[in-house]
Amino acid sequence: MLRHLIQPLDFTTEEFEQLFRLADQILENPSAYSDVCKGKLMASLFFEPSTRTRLSFESAMYRLGGQVVGFADAKVSSTAKGESLSDTLRTVENYCDIAAMRHPKEGAALLASKYMTTMPIINAGDGGHQHPTQTLTDLTTIRHYKGHFDHLTIGVCGDLKFGRTIHSLVRAMNRYDGVKFVFISPDELKMPQVFLDELDPQDYTETSNLKEAIKDLDILYMSRVQRERFVSEEEYLRLKDFFILDKEKMALARKDMLVLHPLPRVNEIHPEVDADPRAVYFQQARFGMYIRMALIMFLLGLGGQND
Amino acid sequence: MLRHLIQPLDFTTEEFEQLFRLADQILENPSAYSDVCKGKLMASLFFEPSTRTRLSFESAMYRLGGQVVGFADAKVSSTAKGESLSDTLRTVENYCDIAAMRHPKEGAALLASKYMTTMPIINAGDGGHQHPTQTLTDLTTIRHYKGHFDHLTIGVCGDLKFGRTIHSLVRAMNRYDGVKFVFISPDELKMPQVFLDELDPQDYTETSNLKEAIKDLDILYMSRVQRERFVSEEEYLRLKDFFILDKEKMALARKDMLVLHPLPRVNEIHPEVDADPRAVYFQQARFGMYIRMALIMFLLGLGGQND
Amino acid sequence: MLRHLIQPLDFTTEEFEQLFRLADQILENPSAYSDVCKGKLMASLFFEPSTRTRLSFESAMYRLGGQVVGFADAKVSSTAKGESLSDTLRTVENYCDIAAMRHPKEGAALLASKYMTTMPIINAGDGGHQHPTQTLTDLTTIRHYKGHFDHLTIGVCGDLKFGRTIHSLVRAMNRYDGVKFVFISPDELKMPQVFLDELDPQDYTETSNLKEAIKDLDILYMSRVQRERFVSEEEYLRLKDFFILDKEKMALARKDMLVLHPLPRVNEIHPEVDADPRAVYFQQARFGMYIRMALIMFLLGLGGQND
Repeated sequence: MLRHLIQPLDFTTEEFEQLFRLADQILENPSAYSDVCKGKLMASLFFEPSTRTRLSFESAMYRLGGQVVGFADAKVSSTAKGESLSDTLRTVENYCDIAAMRHPKEGAALLASKYMTTMPIINAGDGGHQHPTQTLTDLTTIRHYKGHFDHLTIGVCGDLKFGRTIHSLVRAMNRYDGVKFVFISPDELKMPQVFLDELDPQDYTETSNLKEAIKDLDILYMSRVQRERFVSEEEYLRLKDFFILDKEKMALARKDMLVLHPLPRVNEIHPEVDADPRAVYFQQARFGMYIRMALIMFLLGLGGQND
Repeated sequence: MLRHLIQPLDFTTEEFEQLFRLADQILENPSAYSDVCKGKLMASLFFEPSTRTRLSFESAMYRLGGQVVGFADAKVSSTAKGESLSDTLRTVENYCDIAAMRHPKEGAALLASKYMTTMPIINAGDGGHQHPTQTLTDLTTIRHYKGHFDHLTIGVCGDLKFGRTIHSLVRAMNRYDGVKFVFISPDELKMPQVFLDELDPQDYTETSNLKEAIKDLDILYMSRVQRERFVSEEEYLRLKDFFILDKEKMALARKDMLVLHPLPRVNEIHPEVDADPRAVYFQQARFGMYIRMALIMFLLGLGGQND
Repeated sequence: MLRHLIQPLDFTTEEFEQLFRLADQILENPSAYSDVCKGKLMASLFFEPSTRTRLSFESAMYRLGGQVVGFADAKVSSTAKGESLSDTLRTVENYCDIAAMRHPKEGAALLASKYMTTMPIINAGDGGHQHPTQTLTDLTTIRHYKGHFDHLTIGVCGDLKFGRTIHSLVRAMNRYDGVKFVFISPDELKMPQVFLDELDPQDYTETSNLKEAIKDLDILYMSRVQRERFVSEEEYLRLKDFFILDKEKMALARKDMLVLHPLPRVNEIHPEVDADPRAVYFQQARFGMYIRMALIMFLLGLGGQND
């Protein structure tokens, strides 16, 4: 049966575990996987630019010995001529074996997937909605350093109101046992009630004090406060620097606390933190490539299903 | 001798037949051809965007084991610095083995080809003029389903005045025996006299009634009515929906009539027709990739010449 | 130790010689090198467009059997989201083995290189500052045709005030014995004093008479006069055609004088000169690809170091 990855929880925790194990195997012995996608072609369809995500997907495909065609920008696509998204995707299906697709409209990847008969689609971000491979990247990083997900205390800090990567991460982590969440944000950017309602009230706390909250965390997930989310420039400037992670706050944290960030960062993490061994946000990008390699193999039926 | 493909009829019907046979062989056994262009480099030079055509060429080259460099958009090319087209191409000839080139100016591909000493150029569309690989794609699709070209009755519908793919298709089909044409269009978009003059008057009829004409066709070739061809928005809106193919009209057609369309479509074919097995416009894209694989091999001297 | 190529003279003349020899070997037997970079990934990071340079780097990597990811234009990069250049490069380092980087800001490549731990960076041009692989290309071309650098008389003509490729070429050639320079330009575009100060006064002359100067040259290096360098359009128009190379002037030159040009040219070399066997500016592009192949191998530790 043709599988896609549209939403972070489209896959069960067992399937996630298969992907993590496959990513581990690739990481340990990359050359054993350097030809598994020989002769396979990935469509890299970025209807809006996202260099980081695009390079990660394309690098993943190349590292597996596959090839890539596509576009990095909507202006260069045929939808400019008035073509429907489903027609574009049905055409691409004739050329390619798998597609990674980014689109500014919510639900675009889901819609496109309904027309496919042979080509798996990976949602590489649709509007402010879903970005499942970022969630996989975050989980892979946590699992690599911590070895497990159960009973971890994870602080998420920044724009909790609009941050889609945070919403997905919380939902995914909540599938594991005994995970505790600490939501750290200014009042204006608190976690929406709809997400809180999915959690056991005993499993989370809310605070606006990063300095205080940092002490008890296994993981601190920092996020960017995007200018375009704010009604005024003043609001943005007032809030963006509110929760900056620096050396001083890091000194209060546990010795084995991890700092993650989906990147790009602007100034919510001071560069002086980069050298701290607990700061793993650049390594995170590396795990992002490996888990995408595993995902591509999985969706192409090339391993990871039941081995 | 260095060969190019600039105009649809640059190749004889015998050479076309060699290409069709090679495309058949590739389609039957793609893995036998997955390395024939190993070490070869194609320049994909799109001085104006055309995602569909570009992806088809690049997929073709990758499916043969070759590589691709290039650009998808004029703004990213050096001609912005005032360089002549021939200088750009002579530079690229130092890097690449073959080029697919799209350019907004009529005659650009022909001009460029005159400067080449080692690199075959494939015209991937020059202005409103020529688009020979679309013609090859159309013919490959017809030949695949019908097995031959002789004695077919082909209806072409839409913008017959400006539609370059239609003009080329008619000229190419007219090289075969006993082919009849039915030109279906509003009065304002009729087939230009210069093309009619090339045909035997007994071999074509003109009509503005798609519903009536559809009954006798072996092939119905639909085409897009482009907004930019009209003097006013009202003219466009009045004419564009004039000849929409829907389920009702399909019910009047023969059981083995094929529907082709160069894509992208806007609304000249209703989506309810997509599921009809006679609608082969998405499969057409697939044949487009295979015939381009054959063409690349042919021009690189890698088969299809006399085998 | 991790090496980069940021400035033309980062490498010793001995290292240059290793590169030239490796380029020679590749040129003689390209197929022996067609897989040496299999499994390697190059980042092609063009923060400003430069098709010629980009295609040369990417072709070089493909000719070695490697792969390429990247972008051709700043607008498509994440720095648009406010990310620092060092963060972008540190992310890319997780995906790629080597990077070729073009940036509009002087010093960008040097800055980025300081953050790297595993990925060599090749400066593919930073602002009006440095463009070391153009210098390598020029030297490779000279060495190919002349067999040596010592005791050559080289005329450089055009915009000597702002032409970074000329400044680098002069510095690089001045490392060899007995090289004489003839600086040919209008008064407004003379070689800056800071570069003249580096030369022995006996080793150069300045003139505004190309016709006179051409007679004694072993090499004539022509360069483009860029519109954007001038305060007014009138200044530009008055000066740009001042020193056009044509058949008449070529008739005065030695039979073995070489004409080089970094390309793109606008009109400073008349097309009638192209057919002259002494005009090697298109071949120059070819040497540019081969020396980049050698450079990539060198920086990846794949040969050229001490063999």
